[in-house]
Amino acid sequence: MTHDKTIDLNADLGEGFGAWRMGDDAAMLGVVTSANVACGFHAGDPDIMAGIFTQAREKGVAVGAHVAFPDLAGFGRRALAMTPAEIEHAVAYQLGAALALARQAGVRLAHVKAHGALANLAETDAATADAIARAVKAVDPSLTLLVIALSEQVRAGARAGLRLAHEIFADRAYAEDGTLAPRAQKGAVIEDAAAAATRVRDMLAEGALITQSGARLKTPIDSVCVHGDTPQAVAMARDLRASLKAAGYRLRAFAPGA
Amino acid sequence: MTHDKTIDLNADLGEGFGAWRMGDDAAMLGVVTSANVACGFHAGDPDIMAGIFTQAREKGVAVGAHVAFPDLAGFGRRALAMTPAEIEHAVAYQLGAALALARQAGVRLAHVKAHGALANLAETDAATADAIARAVKAVDPSLTLLVIALSEQVRAGARAGLRLAHEIFADRAYAEDGTLAPRAQKGAVIEDAAAAATRVRDMLAEGALITQSGARLKTPIDSVCVHGDTPQAVAMARDLRASLKAAGYRLRAFAPGA
Amino acid sequence: MTHDKTIDLNADLGEGFGAWRMGDDAAMLGVVTSANVACGFHAGDPDIMAGIFTQAREKGVAVGAHVAFPDLAGFGRRALAMTPAEIEHAVAYQLGAALALARQAGVRLAHVKAHGALANLAETDAATADAIARAVKAVDPSLTLLVIALSEQVRAGARAGLRLAHEIFADRAYAEDGTLAPRAQKGAVIEDAAAAATRVRDMLAEGALITQSGARLKTPIDSVCVHGDTPQAVAMARDLRASLKAAGYRLRAFAPGA
Amino acid sequence: MTHDKTIDLNADLGEGFGAWRMGDDAAMLGVVTSANVACGFHAGDPDIMAGIFTQAREKGVAVGAHVAFPDLAGFGRRALAMTPAEIEHAVAYQLGAALALARQAGVRLAHVKAHGALANLAETDAATADAIARAVKAVDPSLTLLVIALSEQVRAGARAGLRLAHEIFADRAYAEDGTLAPRAQKGAVIEDAAAAATRVRDMLAEGALITQSGARLKTPIDSVCVHGDTPQAVAMARDLRASLKAAGYRLRAFAPGA
Repeated sequence: MTHDKTIDLNADLGEGFGAWRMGDDAAMLGVVTSANVACGFHAGDPDIMAGIFTQAREKGVAVGAHVAFPDLAGFGRRALAMTPAEIEHAVAYQLGAALALARQAGVRLAHVKAHGALANLAETDAATADAIARAVKAVDPSLTLLVIALSEQVRAGARAGLRLAHEIFADRAYAEDGTLAPRAQKGAVIEDAAAAATRVRDMLAEGALITQSGARLKTPIDSVCVHGDTPQAVAMARDLRASLKAAGYRLRAFAPGA
Repeated sequence: MTHDKTIDLNADLGEGFGAWRMGDDAAMLGVVTSANVACGFHAGDPDIMAGIFTQAREKGVAVGAHVAFPDLAGFGRRALAMTPAEIEHAVAYQLGAALALARQAGVRLAHVKAHGALANLAETDAATADAIARAVKAVDPSLTLLVIALSEQVRAGARAGLRLAHEIFADRAYAEDGTLAPRAQKGAVIEDAAAAATRVRDMLAEGALITQSGARLKTPIDSVCVHGDTPQAVAMARDLRASLKAAGYRLRAFAPGA
Repeated sequence: MTHDKTIDLNADLGEGFGAWRMGDDAAMLGVVTSANVACGFHAGDPDIMAGIFTQAREKGVAVGAHVAFPDLAGFGRRALAMTPAEIEHAVAYQLGAALALARQAGVRLAHVKAHGALANLAETDAATADAIARAVKAVDPSLTLLVIALSEQVRAGARAGLRLAHEIFADRAYAEDGTLAPRAQKGAVIEDAAAAATRVRDMLAEGALITQSGARLKTPIDSVCVHGDTPQAVAMARDLRASLKAAGYRLRAFAPGA
Repeated sequence: MTHDKTIDLNADLGEGFGAWRMGDDAAMLGVVTSANVACGFHAGDPDIMAGIFTQAREKGVAVGAHVAFPDLAGFGRRALAMTPAEIEHAVAYQLGAALALARQAGVRLAHVKAHGALANLAETDAATADAIARAVKAVDPSLTLLVIALSEQVRAGARAGLRLAHEIFADRAYAEDGTLAPRAQKGAVIEDAAAAATRVRDMLAEGALITQSGARLKTPIDSVCVHGDTPQAVAMARDLRASLKAAGYRLRAFAPGA
């Protein structure tokens, strides 16, 4: 089995707050190889973080900090007017909290990923992408930055000298420029599990994003993002995992923790 | 000048939030040798923390994480019904955030101190004191725990194997058991700067807390806590600093950063 | 059908926040006759409140303000050290918000109920119970105070001159003094739907709480509190409704809105 | 003295939160005739609101609800991506809370004013202005909407059938289209108290905004907005008040409470 046949599956976990929960974290920890853990700004709190880190350690799932705009009420999905310096501080804060709780749980933090509106902004805005990359570099340069393939984050990560992991999305269509098609657009979200799995395998085989028109955009691919917020999403993630294994892929975190 | 004639002055800084400020941080950074920096749970936010860490680095003031109950509305002065495990996670979270922002600002975090209701609880409750000490130990065992002299925190820190710094208060009277006299009590807060300075010098010279009745309770003393939330408090802190220097003390952080 | 054969069923609804939800509000609006709507302090936000008020209007369910300690992270289940005056202001704030959003949705607010730790405190602490009652009296004296039967809230409501509705709990055992048996105690929560329904019918028929030993404590009973946070809870509430209808009860809000 | 010679002075008060304070509320209550009271979304909390309402009642100052985006960390100065319906609910929530706390304090709420980024948006965006006006209309149509003169809020208020009060700013320059010159622009903030007072008197005498080029834009003027967040601002407000009285103006709230 060659290196080409290794792939990571990542999902966003620990997205509850206080008494609230979102998605089936326990199920997803049995599917993915990397977990992006909410750090308290869009979701997550110290107890939820501690729980996910502990379970991830037990199940051998790699963990990362899922950093976001400070907006619990909006689940980090609204862009906040923050300067690059403010974003840099906010990312450092969340990252530090995640590093500490991971250490407390006996697991090494492996990566950092931007969530929601912060990720959307960093996809196309170099200043935001640089702010995130600089924060990671300053706080822990050994961390891998998990970025949307072909986004501004790729260039920002390279400028900062960070190790990168490029992700594609199992259930989202790509526009011709390689950006994610807006959710509101017809066909932007792929709901058929078999179609999603085939498409992911094609992208992995070709080393390219496949756009809505069928164009190929070459990119490294290190991870596939799956969701777990509904029972259907969990089932789809499981199907994808099985499909990839059947196709000869070894599922392994791009940047395993200790 | 002997080691015995070295002392640290510490104060709580960075206690604003968003557009709000509390106290004169810039003035106090010219007076103290150690700053306890609010970590966002009772006060403080990533930008304020970054600002204090940067200024402290420039002025050579050592910095620590001032950890608290999560209660912005109550400024951390209300005890929350949290389990020891919850306290442990909350302390780790804040400590990690402070470590990251300090590193980003180019300064090494030196210590950890509990704030407000969390400190009051840890003064007498061993389970709370242990939870704090365990969190520090797990996240960064090289940090010094700044504790109220003769409190449960002294024993908890020893159990965790942490380096300790013992603090006394410049402006607070001590009950016969060595605990702080309740603020509501007449005479509990010492408002005369000269009287406070004399008393601090006496305690340092004798290596003992001096209670309201004049009894001596032997304890190591590594730091004196001063306040900066009013112009009078800043002036009192300056007077104490001058008085200690006049008495031959060298003012130096108990646990200097890089 | 006599007045004695009329009863209200109440449940706590709108207990989500932002992207989070708790319980099956739509299902419960088909079961209960009164909804206690979270006001943003322990759960709920303006959009969720607006949604519940609108649905309740459409389904003819009476609505009330479910007021709590300001503690989203703790879901209002932790007692906060607040003075009676602070509680009075906090209750007025939440009540005003609920009145406004109900009016905006075209429904009249009918009642006020305390949630979680605030309710627990008000059950036995006269100062807390009085603070709540005074706030309701000051803001809208036409509102009904929904109180735990035989609690301090009964006396406080009477002192304030408020209309009262007395509630019993379908699934909670009563200690000999009429207070709720602590949840941790064996048998404190009744999980068998048929047993719960029989017990409720007995209490209604006798006009009395029935304690764990079988003693009867006379009290008016205007409403039965049911829960909807799990599928089992919803089913139990439906069973109770059916059982009461079969026993000849007319289900009707104790204090219907417009 | 004719009606033409009556004017209101308004200022933003109660802009603290928890232990934090901003500006000198007590001083400003001796200067202004109307107070815009923060409602807990950008600043303010139930206790601070209660305090301002009580003091305003004692001093005969009219009070209004100062409604904002929910953003304590950003002091309501950042635009949040909220739909008109979400803004409508958020305004109703805050307005209801203010109505309740005013009633509790024994004073009648007189007006509503938008704060910060919400006001900036409503100045030019009709959908936002309409959302605010509809919320006021639904919750209490007897309230006066205090609007920036010549803004979209004027038209939105008219569409909703609300009573309007038009405000000008004592210390802010106007662009040629009648909008406020951006703060970053040179000369946008008028710092000379005498110059500000002369300009206000000129605008009042002419019934027009005076733009930076000296053009006159006719508008009703019912109130002049002053600030109190610094000692200089308080002094400037006092000077303006004295200047207006010297010029024969009677200072009186545009919409006095009970």
